[in-house]
Amino acid sequence: MRTPTPIEFWYDFGSNYSYLSVMRIDALAAAHGVPLVWRPFLLGPIFKSFGWDNSPFVLQKEKGEYVWKDMVREGAKYGLPFRRPSVFPRTAVQATRVALLGAQAPWGAEFSRRIMLLNFALDQDIGGDALVSAVLKDMGLPAEALMAAARADEVKARLRDQVAQAHRMGVFGAPTFFVGSEMFWGNDRLDDAVRLAAGRD
Amino acid sequence: MRTPTPIEFWYDFGSNYSYLSVMRIDALAAAHGVPLVWRPFLLGPIFKSFGWDNSPFVLQKEKGEYVWKDMVREGAKYGLPFRRPSVFPRTAVQATRVALLGAQAPWGAEFSRRIMLLNFALDQDIGGDALVSAVLKDMGLPAEALMAAARADEVKARLRDQVAQAHRMGVFGAPTFFVGSEMFWGNDRLDDAVRLAAGRD
Repeated sequence: MRTPTPIEFWYDFGSNYSYLSVMRIDALAAAHGVPLVWRPFLLGPIFKSFGWDNSPFVLQKEKGEYVWKDMVREGAKYGLPFRRPSVFPRTAVQATRVALLGAQAPWGAEFSRRIMLLNFALDQDIGGDALVSAVLKDMGLPAEALMAAARADEVKARLRDQVAQAHRMGVFGAPTFFVGSEMFWGNDRLDDAVRLAAGRD
Repeated sequence: MRTPTPIEFWYDFGSNYSYLSVMRIDALAAAHGVPLVWRPFLLGPIFKSFGWDNSPFVLQKEKGEYVWKDMVREGAKYGLPFRRPSVFPRTAVQATRVALLGAQAPWGAEFSRRIMLLNFALDQDIGGDALVSAVLKDMGLPAEALMAAARADEVKARLRDQVAQAHRMGVFGAPTFFVGSEMFWGNDRLDDAVRLAAGRD
């Protein structure tokens, strides 16, 4: 029996397939005894580096139309609520900074799930500060202090570093999982990543 | 118990994820009593209609590098041989026309598997007539007659129609599966398509 390897989990709050993984990964990893490292980041700057000014699901009409039908089926498959967001992709910089603060805290995973549900089940504007603050309050956390901490230059710089690191590691979409140096792209590979991390491959 | 719906299976001999589905689909469909309609086609003209002059796995370097690592793992997952082709993507017009002739014949599926294995397990030039002819001979089929039949104007027109039909149906990549009007894209969705076709959804 090998010691499980941690999974580094890279996700973006605007990414619909990241939504599925954010909702699924905690239970799956726990069931296999696999530790998680949550890596919230922004996909926008990565897409820009490819010369794209938007999500490929917007830029490529045919794929875009397909993706929302796929998401309805995928939601049903995993028993997750899904409503197509009226704005896509949503950018949620402040929520991502807060998630970065929470990444090593016990509330981080739940915060990320709440933000994802607001975007992909309730069609809410997760880019606004009001909603992020309300989520923190609702979770019984010191919302004002966390919102202020997330706006500090040091956290802004950490988010920029996080994006730069994703770029260096070859991340080109989300969700992306790393098990050691093995990269897995897409919610469709989450089970494979967990299996490898658990040492059962 | 509902009557199974046929699966329309669209695939391109140059597409690596089509390779996985071509190898897997027959057994899977048979196990669930699902009839198959084999739809060999050419992805190149579809990509051109998007303004792309090559596969997205070539045009997008980061994704391209990932895909070949993913293919090694996917091959292992499904117990299929895999070697990265030294030329990618290979265009195999004559092989596709022969596959079109075979699509409703008992030898069609096996012919498609042989061509796929030559491309993705043995790194052979499936674009050349010699190899296509050799496969037909090896299968005990009238190779010369089939090669000539595949070059007839009527078959050339059928392949063009097939591509135009794919385009009209919203196909933007391969493999693609239709169960009635439900479209599924990618080898990762083959099991879902079979489940829906079998009437178990």
